[in-house]
Amino acid sequence: MKQFTSVHDVKDIDKLVADALAAKANPFANKKLGENKTMGIIFLNPSLRTRLSTQKAARNLGMETMVMNFGGEGWNLETEDGVVMNGNNQEHIKEAAAVIGQYCDVIGIRSFPSFEDREKDYQEKILKDFIKYSGRPVVSLESATRHPLQSLADLVTITELKKVERPKVVLTWAPHPRRLPQAVSNSFAEWMNKADVDLVITHPEGYDLSPEFVGNAQVTNNQDEAFEGADFVYAKNWSTYEPYGQILSQDPSWTITEEKMALTNQGKFMHCLPVRRNVIVSDGVLDSDSSAAIQQAGNREWAAHAVIQEILRGL
Amino acid sequence: MKQFTSVHDVKDIDKLVADALAAKANPFANKKLGENKTMGIIFLNPSLRTRLSTQKAARNLGMETMVMNFGGEGWNLETEDGVVMNGNNQEHIKEAAAVIGQYCDVIGIRSFPSFEDREKDYQEKILKDFIKYSGRPVVSLESATRHPLQSLADLVTITELKKVERPKVVLTWAPHPRRLPQAVSNSFAEWMNKADVDLVITHPEGYDLSPEFVGNAQVTNNQDEAFEGADFVYAKNWSTYEPYGQILSQDPSWTITEEKMALTNQGKFMHCLPVRRNVIVSDGVLDSDSSAAIQQAGNREWAAHAVIQEILRGL
Amino acid sequence: MKQFTSVHDVKDIDKLVADALAAKANPFANKKLGENKTMGIIFLNPSLRTRLSTQKAARNLGMETMVMNFGGEGWNLETEDGVVMNGNNQEHIKEAAAVIGQYCDVIGIRSFPSFEDREKDYQEKILKDFIKYSGRPVVSLESATRHPLQSLADLVTITELKKVERPKVVLTWAPHPRRLPQAVSNSFAEWMNKADVDLVITHPEGYDLSPEFVGNAQVTNNQDEAFEGADFVYAKNWSTYEPYGQILSQDPSWTITEEKMALTNQGKFMHCLPVRRNVIVSDGVLDSDSSAAIQQAGNREWAAHAVIQEILRGL
Repeated sequence: MKQFTSVHDVKDIDKLVADALAAKANPFANKKLGENKTMGIIFLNPSLRTRLSTQKAARNLGMETMVMNFGGEGWNLETEDGVVMNGNNQEHIKEAAAVIGQYCDVIGIRSFPSFEDREKDYQEKILKDFIKYSGRPVVSLESATRHPLQSLADLVTITELKKVERPKVVLTWAPHPRRLPQAVSNSFAEWMNKADVDLVITHPEGYDLSPEFVGNAQVTNNQDEAFEGADFVYAKNWSTYEPYGQILSQDPSWTITEEKMALTNQGKFMHCLPVRRNVIVSDGVLDSDSSAAIQQAGNREWAAHAVIQEILRGL
Repeated sequence: MKQFTSVHDVKDIDKLVADALAAKANPFANKKLGENKTMGIIFLNPSLRTRLSTQKAARNLGMETMVMNFGGEGWNLETEDGVVMNGNNQEHIKEAAAVIGQYCDVIGIRSFPSFEDREKDYQEKILKDFIKYSGRPVVSLESATRHPLQSLADLVTITELKKVERPKVVLTWAPHPRRLPQAVSNSFAEWMNKADVDLVITHPEGYDLSPEFVGNAQVTNNQDEAFEGADFVYAKNWSTYEPYGQILSQDPSWTITEEKMALTNQGKFMHCLPVRRNVIVSDGVLDSDSSAAIQQAGNREWAAHAVIQEILRGL
Repeated sequence: MKQFTSVHDVKDIDKLVADALAAKANPFANKKLGENKTMGIIFLNPSLRTRLSTQKAARNLGMETMVMNFGGEGWNLETEDGVVMNGNNQEHIKEAAAVIGQYCDVIGIRSFPSFEDREKDYQEKILKDFIKYSGRPVVSLESATRHPLQSLADLVTITELKKVERPKVVLTWAPHPRRLPQAVSNSFAEWMNKADVDLVITHPEGYDLSPEFVGNAQVTNNQDEAFEGADFVYAKNWSTYEPYGQILSQDPSWTITEEKMALTNQGKFMHCLPVRRNVIVSDGVLDSDSSAAIQQAGNREWAAHAVIQEILRGL
């Protein structure tokens, strides 16, 4: 694997899930693989799970890691081409990426959308420029439109917990006080379209995700109907795709509660975290045995492990 | 040892001091002990000595370390139960702790008091929630009311420097321009109560520490009297316990000077650092051979080493 | 080598360049040298290249590394002697350096000039205090007046790329919107004075560097004349030395363009990065094969490697 930016970079998702589960069972089996190799873990935005799980996975594989926070520790990056750089941005992404590529064998990078321009966000310019100018395999640690390490961890979790061969998986919008990216939702939908599940997406009117991510999922504005017989309920807020980046609703009737979970087939509650308690989901659901959120977070390590391992094998 | 949050977690403080001194003599003797184990070192507040000495100690023991600054690198944590999280806090401590517990075998956490509510600070909610929800052994890197790694390093230093079997140790308040926690002073008093020393606490009127920490110490508002014949003078500012978090005095006559040290039995000056020169203590004292402050700081590594080693043995 | 703060700390620069090139060819040959040794990498100012290349180099040599950002992660440092510390600075550099020296075998430190007082900046008080009070070998990661790891990497790059025994090297001022230190320019001039090159410095009137750094270089205010037959063009902005820290010109005619590079002997363009595109240098030059900027950045790792290796040998 030369890069990991979406499900489309993965030849065989079943094998990747199997690799993650094998790593979970035996974390240090491939500690020689990354010897004398360094992973640069670069954050243009905050992170907890990704920060820790990616470091951990790289070290399980014997790699050195270097974590850097742009902004706080370095400089502001310019991403436009041809610009006269006499403003606040001290370094162009072309140089930053190329320089990081000098020191790192593999690069992980997190960069959220700007919400200034949908087309630009959806072109994934920062991620693509990092790939282009660093000359190294790049792992997305969440980009403007996708969070593939999260989605892989989600699929690992579903694989561990499913009680039927082809579970019903519901991706449901839930309210949130801030304008959030579509990345986690896009990415989850994209992965579930490739997995052996029945995917239903439910959200209030006006919250349709981009068709390229919705794929073959069934879409409904009726959350209760969607929850009927669900094996997994994946909750996430996102702001609107069209018009871009709006908050149309904060309707608390979309919050996931124990009453709603009762509609499911003893379904598992899933969320990528961080989660706003009693906004996205009630304390009752999150603190119950039906919540898989911590298990998902734990599986982030094994998802990263499987991906970095595959990239190391391709070096 | 399953946690290290106060002297009460230690079965045998003499043995822990001996372990620290053995580590100082031979730092890499137990480098196999922590192999394939990871320590998460989490800061909700700034740190220099703790940050570096804890990393160093964990690595002496062969552990991997992951350092994370909340706020700067992650998000603001919600610590109240049952709250509707539609404000500024993005993640609840329940999830944050549980997630960090997924990636780390041992967790160190620093969290200062809020000064908003004495009862809440003294309940050590953040530290206790980390223990409860992470499911991992937790080492306090200074909490709202205690700084036990500092106190252990202090006891190691006293053990190294004492010239009599049972030295006289004076904990003295000293002036400071800001409202400081009682943690270092509480913790030092608590440890000295368990150690083979005569403890005297001196401070201006109104600065009494909580009785649970004062223990059997002799307390006086007469600093000169306290210093008479002292073998060790431990200076520290703290704000008031009752009423909570007030600055009642900045009286420079409480600053530790060479004249005052002359009252002692050629006593050693101690401070946990950082120290405000010529406010807490004169340049003359701090730059003299009677200051043990740098030795104390150095012993932070060996205190952390002994504690982490004990925790690794209990895994 | 006991410290690396300028070219004057180096006994044999040819050997150091050779060591850097040997490390580049065989990065892990001396991985035992730094075993059980720790390098503290301390930033009082932002950094990308230095941050990553120094970590990488230390780890190539088998060292542990601890990176710390003052300000963000620690406290503000007081650097004046004898001051009553009742203001914003929480810790004196005397204690900070001594404490870091307790935990680290080698210390790297970055500290930019304050621009408040030229004499103070040029005395390198912070760097010298770190050396004095830490008691450890100190590597400058850029100080108020010099950036010797950059200059060594520059010399390594010139050594790799030169087509004649004694190349013509031009250090040229270029415009920039902010007041920048003289450190990179001073340091480059100082190293080139010791190297087997013909050094020409060109800048607008009023931008003369301190004579101690200019040395035997030829100086001209005519950039075109300077570029004639140049093998290397090293561009850098700096603010004035006399009067100190002024911006006298932002004249875009000093920007390095393809037309200007055409005056040279197929010269290589060099810059330490970060670089302001189309202010310091045109996109055309920076994106052409004549730019050595990324190679320079890559050589930072090998410069740091050679220096740390030499220091480890002297421990």
